[in-house]
Amino acid sequence: SRSINLAVIPGDGIGQEVVAQGLKILSAVLPQDVKLETKEYDFGARRYHATGETLTDADLEQLKQHDAILLGAIGDPSVPSGVLERGFLLKLRFAFDHHVNLRPSKLLPGVGTPLAGQPEIDFVVVREGTEGPYTGNGGTIRGGTPHAVATEVSLNTAFGIERVVRDAYARAQARPRKKLALVHKNNVLVHAGHLWTDIFNKVGEEFPEVTTEYMHVDAATIYLVTQPERFDVIVTDNLFGDIITDLAAAISGGIGVAASGNINPSGRFPSMFEPVHGSAPDIAGQGKADPSATVLSVALLLRHLGYETEAARIEEAVSADLAERVGAPARTTDEIGDALAVRVAG
Amino acid sequence: SRSINLAVIPGDGIGQEVVAQGLKILSAVLPQDVKLETKEYDFGARRYHATGETLTDADLEQLKQHDAILLGAIGDPSVPSGVLERGFLLKLRFAFDHHVNLRPSKLLPGVGTPLAGQPEIDFVVVREGTEGPYTGNGGTIRGGTPHAVATEVSLNTAFGIERVVRDAYARAQARPRKKLALVHKNNVLVHAGHLWTDIFNKVGEEFPEVTTEYMHVDAATIYLVTQPERFDVIVTDNLFGDIITDLAAAISGGIGVAASGNINPSGRFPSMFEPVHGSAPDIAGQGKADPSATVLSVALLLRHLGYETEAARIEEAVSADLAERVGAPARTTDEIGDALAVRVAG
Ligand SMILES: CC(C)[C@H](C(=O)O)[C@@H](O)C(=O)O
Ligand SMILES: CC(C)[C@H](C(=O)O)[C@@H](O)C(=O)O
Repeated sequence: SRSINLAVIPGDGIGQEVVAQGLKILSAVLPQDVKLETKEYDFGARRYHATGETLTDADLEQLKQHDAILLGAIGDPSVPSGVLERGFLLKLRFAFDHHVNLRPSKLLPGVGTPLAGQPEIDFVVVREGTEGPYTGNGGTIRGGTPHAVATEVSLNTAFGIERVVRDAYARAQARPRKKLALVHKNNVLVHAGHLWTDIFNKVGEEFPEVTTEYMHVDAATIYLVTQPERFDVIVTDNLFGDIITDLAAAISGGIGVAASGNINPSGRFPSMFEPVHGSAPDIAGQGKADPSATVLSVALLLRHLGYETEAARIEEAVSADLAERVGAPARTTDEIGDALAVRVAG
Repeated sequence: SRSINLAVIPGDGIGQEVVAQGLKILSAVLPQDVKLETKEYDFGARRYHATGETLTDADLEQLKQHDAILLGAIGDPSVPSGVLERGFLLKLRFAFDHHVNLRPSKLLPGVGTPLAGQPEIDFVVVREGTEGPYTGNGGTIRGGTPHAVATEVSLNTAFGIERVVRDAYARAQARPRKKLALVHKNNVLVHAGHLWTDIFNKVGEEFPEVTTEYMHVDAATIYLVTQPERFDVIVTDNLFGDIITDLAAAISGGIGVAASGNINPSGRFPSMFEPVHGSAPDIAGQGKADPSATVLSVALLLRHLGYETEAARIEEAVSADLAERVGAPARTTDEIGDALAVRVAG
């Protein structure tokens, strides 16, 4: 008999509320014979204030036992910028080698976009998750003086680039349009850029059916707002991926519906799924948060674990629910969750 | 009697065509008593192919004699990516210490935008121009092997940050709304980010009338498409500035109207003014290029040299010309230039 042993990290702000809905939908969609076990972990600002800890070795040992991780949001204004981001979110991505950071963007029918003319948007960004300027490899000398110098080092390896580029080609190959764009800035960041470009071209030889293009990151932001329909799969570096996926979320319904997966395709460590939005402390506890991004992250989680039918069912439910919202009165977080649970169960 | 001794670099692709219009408008707008001297320099792909040179010490010595530089565009597919960008464009910005990279974004009446609802857009990005990941401080080991590692180092100094931050505050102070946003990624790039943030806050004490906010670069891309009217002045790092100013151009009329100045406020070296668009080799020589971005760059040049009235006259002419285009038949580069020349002279 099948089973899912899930680690649940509600986290800060609206994390609690949206994760509750994600779990509701997960229970509702799973077939009877699948045994769902969940264990909740209290990470985030509360724990940091109480103990000074963000994520210990013992925590990682425990999390490692799970099949996957569902995360709400981590971050609170009471904690200095960078502490939880680097001490928890990035630490987890690096510890579990989440090198494929998957961020789909699809403008669903009836969903608002700041762009004129409701363009067709349906692409996925494969963001590298363990290298680039995210490795914490920087420093400061003479801080606090007029002679201060601060550095940030972007680290890029053939090993790290090749595995994520290959993953992106495989995803492009599996999609109807079979298009892959590499986004970088190889005219300025020539060392990292040429390594990415060379590997991108070389791996491409294994995927003759995939049509490729190269685009500078600055140009990519232009095309994302003027011709978003041109994109199918994008592969890019950690920092460029961070930037363009927020823009991608903004044009395809907002961060209220943007899901993401921090994936270790080897399965050696559990993958983590989380909405792209943050903890939104300003609306926490008021039932105003849209749980759709978390619910769509649950769909990515299920697909990763091999439950394709259930993943698709969730995506259809969210799509139908969003379409029904147009002109309807606003509902609470819980009401949206209930409506989605009914849909996926039906 | 007054005079302007201008270096003119038409460059590659459409550079030639658009610079011709820029000079036409410059001659037309200047008062009789101002003596305009121009000297043309043949930099770019042609020179590179003929001599292997991009920008020599002797070139820099010559350019240094001028009051300002007007550049069309540099770049051609026949030259490997990075060669002209780093060997010419960036070399010049660094050699002449162009630390204030000024990029205004204003959505003029009647001008197209990919955003719905024609929002009010009127802000200026002050992009740092001589530091960050643009210093060419990177390297590769074991290139071409599966063990290759490439680095890119972002260099940030208190000296470099403070001068551009102070310039941005002064610009914000001089504008009606007096708002300044710092855009960075201080939750991940903590060393560079905290240096920027600390200096931003400290210099802010000298400008009590300026309202400030901090925004992560990923969030900034969201706000640029959902609430562009919220921005007045933005100050940011070299790379983030590169990325968000292309997005800013896209939402405020496209790169056909985006002007920029690479400014050395001390006047120790000549400042350089250029359209944000590149050389667009696909439409070069066909009279299809829109010279507006170059003409608006001439306005920035004149303002920098103290010709505020003439700068404003050019901006009004471009604005009126763009408004008249709606629904009218397309005109050639030359026709647009002629129409603008008539307007600024009148
Ligand atoms: C919170 C932050 C560390 C994170 C990132 O920069 O990756 C976030 O912006 C994201 O995109 O998941
Ligand atoms: C061509 C390139 C070097 C340049 C940059 O990255 O600064 C360009 O994109 C720009 O914005 O002026």
